[in-house]
Amino acid sequence: MHSNVRTIDLTSETESSHQHGLVARADARPGFIDRWLASRVQRIIEPARVRLELWDGSSPYSAGLRPIGDLVVHDRSTLLGLIVNPDMQFGESYMAGRLDVRGALPAITAQLTRLSTLEPSWLDRARAALSTANTLRRSRQNVHHHYDLGNSFYERWLDRQMVYTCAYFAREEMSLEEAQYAKLDLVCRKLRLTPGESVIEAGCGWGSLALHMARHYGVKVTAFNISREQIAYARERAAREKLSGQVEFIDDDYRNVSGRFDAFVSVGMLEHVGKRNLSSVGAVLQRTLKRDSGRGLLHFIGRDVSRPLNAWIRRRIFPGAYTPTLAELTNSVLAPAGMSIIDVENLRLHYARTLAAWSARFGSASDYVRATYGDEFHRAWQLYLAGSEAAFHTGWLQLFQVVFTPRESSPPSWTRSDPFEARITPV
Amino acid sequence: MHSNVRTIDLTSETESSHQHGLVARADARPGFIDRWLASRVQRIIEPARVRLELWDGSSPYSAGLRPIGDLVVHDRSTLLGLIVNPDMQFGESYMAGRLDVRGALPAITAQLTRLSTLEPSWLDRARAALSTANTLRRSRQNVHHHYDLGNSFYERWLDRQMVYTCAYFAREEMSLEEAQYAKLDLVCRKLRLTPGESVIEAGCGWGSLALHMARHYGVKVTAFNISREQIAYARERAAREKLSGQVEFIDDDYRNVSGRFDAFVSVGMLEHVGKRNLSSVGAVLQRTLKRDSGRGLLHFIGRDVSRPLNAWIRRRIFPGAYTPTLAELTNSVLAPAGMSIIDVENLRLHYARTLAAWSARFGSASDYVRATYGDEFHRAWQLYLAGSEAAFHTGWLQLFQVVFTPRESSPPSWTRSDPFEARITPV
Repeated sequence: MHSNVRTIDLTSETESSHQHGLVARADARPGFIDRWLASRVQRIIEPARVRLELWDGSSPYSAGLRPIGDLVVHDRSTLLGLIVNPDMQFGESYMAGRLDVRGALPAITAQLTRLSTLEPSWLDRARAALSTANTLRRSRQNVHHHYDLGNSFYERWLDRQMVYTCAYFAREEMSLEEAQYAKLDLVCRKLRLTPGESVIEAGCGWGSLALHMARHYGVKVTAFNISREQIAYARERAAREKLSGQVEFIDDDYRNVSGRFDAFVSVGMLEHVGKRNLSSVGAVLQRTLKRDSGRGLLHFIGRDVSRPLNAWIRRRIFPGAYTPTLAELTNSVLAPAGMSIIDVENLRLHYARTLAAWSARFGSASDYVRATYGDEFHRAWQLYLAGSEAAFHTGWLQLFQVVFTPRESSPPSWTRSDPFEARITPV
Repeated sequence: MHSNVRTIDLTSETESSHQHGLVARADARPGFIDRWLASRVQRIIEPARVRLELWDGSSPYSAGLRPIGDLVVHDRSTLLGLIVNPDMQFGESYMAGRLDVRGALPAITAQLTRLSTLEPSWLDRARAALSTANTLRRSRQNVHHHYDLGNSFYERWLDRQMVYTCAYFAREEMSLEEAQYAKLDLVCRKLRLTPGESVIEAGCGWGSLALHMARHYGVKVTAFNISREQIAYARERAAREKLSGQVEFIDDDYRNVSGRFDAFVSVGMLEHVGKRNLSSVGAVLQRTLKRDSGRGLLHFIGRDVSRPLNAWIRRRIFPGAYTPTLAELTNSVLAPAGMSIIDVENLRLHYARTLAAWSARFGSASDYVRATYGDEFHRAWQLYLAGSEAAFHTGWLQLFQVVFTPRESSPPSWTRSDPFEARITPV
């Protein structure tokens, strides 16, 4: 059963997972205390069939089964850190090369993810509580941290159109380029865009969706982004493709938008809004969507159970990010804004597959990335991509596409099959 | 735009909306106090273009526009009640014939619904807080109240298969019979049932879904129901259709189920569970669904914003009922049970259309219903059907179909289009 659901191969070994760490192994041979700490860590990770190895090659692994991979720890402080604050320590020490992973990084992180409880640690909760709200200024800093790494960095491993969100593999054999195109089109069809309509896009990345909507659906798009690098790229592309008249790229926070639109769309932005600011999204929806005919789509990384994002990811990759549950979306964003949920699709396995494709391309770009950004950066991104793939694969993270309308509006289509039949029988 | 979304004709006048009330108009000609009360009620309902008429034919209606209908009030206490406790009074006095509606009942109730705020009154909240939890015994009483009215009652106005839940009008021209068949099949396809699998159904009505699953998808069904009349009917039908070996109808609360199943399905039952008992559904899911391959579908009447069901409906039609939000479903049922939401579809306009079809058939059965159950019963049901149609039409109520899986399971299909292509390319 479920034979039609593709399983994702998490077992291919990444080139750098065999690499040696970056830090000299200064520690003396493991002593009694090291062996005791090691046996505690091993006990925690053994159900995942992951073997711990100390810096002298010894291991407390005792399970009968062949391990699926090894964590090689290069010093005592890393070992201690794995007990005190595992999520953060795993990332920090992997990044710094004080911890190596032997075997397939996505499969091993998937197994380790399955061990975790869904309950956040007290440390995690405290950190989340102390985190500051994403003001307009703070949002700009957070976005700059990630998205302004240089367009040429992303060009090395994203698809041709630079779509940095979950793709939609509508058919088995699709390439990443095709699957990203399919995703852009799926979003348009779910919104049932028709020529001449006005669309606001919140967080437009490098502009691929805005341009797709304008070119293929004849709509007028007002697209917001606070990443300067991305906006510059998107404007240039619009000019080149003679779509500047139809798509306006605005270098501003979408919360500053004014006017009424037929449709609201946001792909991969809600995660960056932060838990405390979710209601501000609802306020924007309420004042920008036409009450009688408007509709919107939010595509975002979410969760089943409310919990802070992995601490290391927040520190190194996505400062200020929070992945909301559908309940939080309903209670904090949509219901207060008078919106009804029309349709939800969970594409988590499509994101796992997207991330696997990115990891493979990232692997091919390793030399460039190491030479340009350094080894630590390279290892951090390698772990971020593999860990995210594992999180979507295990159901730790979800990818939700949610279609909604103002309560007074009719749903954008009478049946869901309409958008899927659109290519067969034009509506 | 939205030209493809069918609008529902709420304007056809029902036969009995012209009928005179059942109660003798004993009151004297309206005095000063009556006129003052009437002007207050008129002020509230005037934005809906509904005209109030007193028992002497006079009216405080003053809007320039032609009214869409009239509320004819036959005595002072009804007038007073409409101010003090409008939801309950409207139903009670309509039922008793102390209030008549001139014009199309669904359209008028839709306009009046639009006037309400989504905030429940303090009276409503207090009533909901005082309501008792649905114990196994209480559930049985509540179900008996509604579903054991006699199969021959329901046979008069439901479809041939006796499906008493929202139909799915997959194509414009479908009849109610076809749309109910389409709904049963949609549920099966969303669950991707395959031959030999085991399914638990919680609240199986007259058995139509259980039998459809067994006949067309080759699964083994264990179906629970606490309505004796329905169970007896379903068993007889299974025997007649030679499906007794595949479908077991159990006269018990589904919470008493044991064993592990491939799929869980419940259509139109969650509304009867009650707010306090939602978590008991999660507990059943957790212990009955196979962790690695299970999936489930809940089809239920829900809301955008948490609020008690209309007080009159709870009193006269559905005691103990509560229509949850998606947030309540997530937080109280699915997340604690370790379930991930895979897919949500909102079919509210399909329910409005279903109710319109039921109302029309109910109208044709009026003589029988009045003769068998009396005028009060007939008027109560007429209002319940028309009011429900209005609630789905205005977005006051939603109809959610939610597909979920245990977090460890893969989604039942790789893409959503799969179930829709099923009839074209067998899987």
